[in-house]
Amino acid sequence: MSTFNIAIAGLGTVGTGVIRLLQSNADFIIARTGRRIIVKAVSARDKKKKRDCDMTGCDWFDDPRQLAQLPGVDAVVELIGGAEGIAREVALSALKSGKNFVTANKALLAAHGAELARLAESTKIQLSFEASVAGGIPIIKGIREAMAANRINSVRGILNGTCNYILTRMQAGKLSFNDALQEAQRHGYAEADPAADIDGHDTARKVAILAALAFGAEPDFASVEVEGIRNIAPLDLHFADELQHRIKLLGVARLTEAGLEQYVGPCLVPQTSPLAGVDGALNAVQVKGDFSGDLFFEGQGAGAEPTASAVVADLIDLARGHFSPAFGIPAAQLKKLKAVKAGSGQMACWYMRLQVVDKPGVVADISAILRDEAISIESLLQHGRSQTESVPVVITTHAASAEVMRRAIGKMARLPTIIGQPCLLQIEN
Amino acid sequence: MSTFNIAIAGLGTVGTGVIRLLQSNADFIIARTGRRIIVKAVSARDKKKKRDCDMTGCDWFDDPRQLAQLPGVDAVVELIGGAEGIAREVALSALKSGKNFVTANKALLAAHGAELARLAESTKIQLSFEASVAGGIPIIKGIREAMAANRINSVRGILNGTCNYILTRMQAGKLSFNDALQEAQRHGYAEADPAADIDGHDTARKVAILAALAFGAEPDFASVEVEGIRNIAPLDLHFADELQHRIKLLGVARLTEAGLEQYVGPCLVPQTSPLAGVDGALNAVQVKGDFSGDLFFEGQGAGAEPTASAVVADLIDLARGHFSPAFGIPAAQLKKLKAVKAGSGQMACWYMRLQVVDKPGVVADISAILRDEAISIESLLQHGRSQTESVPVVITTHAASAEVMRRAIGKMARLPTIIGQPCLLQIEN
Repeated sequence: MSTFNIAIAGLGTVGTGVIRLLQSNADFIIARTGRRIIVKAVSARDKKKKRDCDMTGCDWFDDPRQLAQLPGVDAVVELIGGAEGIAREVALSALKSGKNFVTANKALLAAHGAELARLAESTKIQLSFEASVAGGIPIIKGIREAMAANRINSVRGILNGTCNYILTRMQAGKLSFNDALQEAQRHGYAEADPAADIDGHDTARKVAILAALAFGAEPDFASVEVEGIRNIAPLDLHFADELQHRIKLLGVARLTEAGLEQYVGPCLVPQTSPLAGVDGALNAVQVKGDFSGDLFFEGQGAGAEPTASAVVADLIDLARGHFSPAFGIPAAQLKKLKAVKAGSGQMACWYMRLQVVDKPGVVADISAILRDEAISIESLLQHGRSQTESVPVVITTHAASAEVMRRAIGKMARLPTIIGQPCLLQIEN
Repeated sequence: MSTFNIAIAGLGTVGTGVIRLLQSNADFIIARTGRRIIVKAVSARDKKKKRDCDMTGCDWFDDPRQLAQLPGVDAVVELIGGAEGIAREVALSALKSGKNFVTANKALLAAHGAELARLAESTKIQLSFEASVAGGIPIIKGIREAMAANRINSVRGILNGTCNYILTRMQAGKLSFNDALQEAQRHGYAEADPAADIDGHDTARKVAILAALAFGAEPDFASVEVEGIRNIAPLDLHFADELQHRIKLLGVARLTEAGLEQYVGPCLVPQTSPLAGVDGALNAVQVKGDFSGDLFFEGQGAGAEPTASAVVADLIDLARGHFSPAFGIPAAQLKKLKAVKAGSGQMACWYMRLQVVDKPGVVADISAILRDEAISIESLLQHGRSQTESVPVVITTHAASAEVMRRAIGKMARLPTIIGQPCLLQIEN
C-alpha cells in the first residue's frame, strides 16, 4: 500500500489530537484514501513533556524547520501558531521545498496568506488551512469547493467560542460579564489572558481569511473593524430578548459596490435566525451565494478532536490527490479589494441603550436628536421609574448609516440627562 | 484555455438552472478552475418548449442515450429523474463509455448506487451526486470529504421541504394537515400528487444515500422504515410545543453494534436542537463524527438555483481533477450492513397521544399498561374536562424499546375508553 508521509511541527493539544486520530481511525482513512497516512517526524519545544499519544516510530527534531528538509515527507503540518517567528519560518521552508503545507494557524494566514499562496503555487503544491477557521466546521472547503459555483455576497459567523460562551452564560445564567468570563476560564473556554478572544481580534483574523476565500481577494486583516464584548451588559441581553433578538459577537465580511466591509462586533440577531440558536462554545458560519442561497454550518469551533478532524480532512484531500488554489483562485489573480467602513454599502438597523436621569423631557431631547439626523425609530423601551436613580432607555431604529448613528450618539452623550457612554449595536438581519 | 465539456439530459427547472448558472457565473468558474465549462449538447422530451435559458451553441439530441457517445464530452449530467427507465440507461451508457456522470437523481442512487459506483470505478471515472440529497446543502461532500477523518455514528436530517413546510404551517398558522398541504401546493412547495413527499418515501431515498456514504455501505433503500406525516394533528404540534419540542419529519441512519437502523418518521426534537429551528421549506442535516462532534448543515433543499449550485459544484470538482470514490470508499469494499429495526441498538424516549373518554379510571388503566410493560412515565398532560366528549391525554416516556412501546399502544387501543388510534412518536434527542 502506498503511504502518505507527514511531519508535524507542534505537539500541543491539536498536534497530539492529530496523532491520536490517525491511529484511532487508521482503518477508515486507508479505506477512504487507499493510502496509509504515517507520521514520520515530529518537532516540539519540550521532548520530555508527557503527551497523550503514542509516538512510536516518529523521528524527533528539536528544530521544526528541519522537517521541511526531510526526504520522503509529503506534507508538513504546522500547529505551532503565531503570525511570525518559527511558524512562519516553517511555512516558508516547507513551501519553498515543495512540501504540501497544512496548518491550523489563523494568524499566519490572515497576515501572510497571499504570500504563502503565491509560494505554494510557484512550487505547485497545496496550502491547506481548514482548521484555521471554526475548528471542525468545514467552512474553508464549503466556500472553496461546495460553493464554488456561486458569486458570494456575504459571510458572517460566530467564530469565537469564548465570546459565545460568555454571552450565552450572561443571557441564560444572568451573569455579569466578569462572572461569565471567570466561569469560562474555570471551564477551559477562556485563556488566562482572554484579550485576543473577548476584544475580537481572534474573530477578525478568521473574517480576513473567510473574506479572502469568498471574494477571491488577498486577506486584508488590517482593515477589519474590531469591537469586542467587554461593554455588553446583562441589561442589553435582556432588552435584546424582549425585542426577540439575541446578542452575538459576529464576524462579518460583505462585498458591495462600495467595496469590502469587514467587521467584528456584538450584534443583535433575530431569534428566528439560525445564528441566534448557536449557544455555548459552538461556532457557526452563514454564507450567502447567489444560486445556493444562504448556507449555514454549525459545529465545534475549537478543541483537540474537532480541530484534528479538520487537519486530517486536509491530509485526506492531499492523499487523494485533490488540489485547489489556496484562496479558491490562482494567487496571481487575488484582488486587492478596496476596504470601506462597515455600513458603507448597505445601511443597517440599530439598537441603542442610554442610561438617562428619569426627568420629564429626556425622551423628547433624545427623539429630537434622532429627528434632526433623520433617524426613524422602530421601537422605544423604558421600564420602571425612579426619582432618584437613572433608568435605561432602549431605542431600535430603522435603517441608518453608521456615520449618522455615531453622530447622533455623540450628541446624546453630551446631554446633561444622559449618564455614561451610550451602547450602540448593529442589528444583523 | 482548456475547456470542460458537458452534456445535459433533462431540461426541467434544474437543467435550465444549471445552464443559467454556467452562463451567469462563467467568469467565477473560469477563475476557480482555470477552465471554461461548456454545455456541448442537451436532450429533453420537447424541443419546442420555451425554456428560461440561452441554449445557443448546444447541440440538441432527442434521445439522451446518445449523449454518452459524443466525442469530446467530459461529463454527462442527468436531470431526468426516476430509478429506472431512461435515467438509468443514460447512467449506464455514460459510465460504460467512461464519461463522468453527474446526477441529481436520488431514486437512481438509492436503488442502484452500488452498481453504478462499481461501474464508475471499473472505467476510472467519477460518479457525482451532490444534488441528489438536500439540494444546495453540500452534505455529500461534507460526509465524503470534510468528515472523512471520522468514524460516523449517525446522520439525521430534515430532508423534505414539502413536509417541513406543512409542519411549520400547521404549527405557526394553526392549520390542519389538509389546509397546510393545500397551501403548500398553492405556493409550489408540494406536487399535485404529494404522496412521495408526505408519506416519507422521498426522505427514505435520501436516508439510504446518506447512510451508504456515512458508513461505507451499499445503499439499502428497501430496509428503510417509513412513516409519513398524514396522521399528525395540530394538537400534536401544540402538545409538543408545551413540552418544549417541535415535530419534524426526520430521516435517520444510525450504526450501532446491533446493525444499521434507517428510518423516516415524524419525531419530537427539543427546541434547543438546531433541527427544531429549521422552518419552512428548508432542509438540514446533522452528522455525528467521533472527532468532529456534531456538525450541522442547513440550507435550501430544493429549487432550480440551489440544486444547480450543487450540480455545478460537482462539475467544478471534476474540472479541477478531484476524484473521490462515489460512496467514500472503493465500491468493492462497500459493506452489506445488517439491517435492524429502528430502536434495536439504542432505546428512545417516546411521545404518545391518546384520545380518551373523560371518565374516572382511564388514566389508571393507561398507567397500569405502562407499568406492566415496565415503561417509565416522564410527563403526562391532560387539559380541559368534558362529560360528553373525549379529551386528549399525552404521555412522554423515559427510554423504552420500539417493540415494547408498540405492544403497550396496542393494549391501550383495545381499552373501551380509548377512541381511535393512539399516536406514537419518537423523541429524538
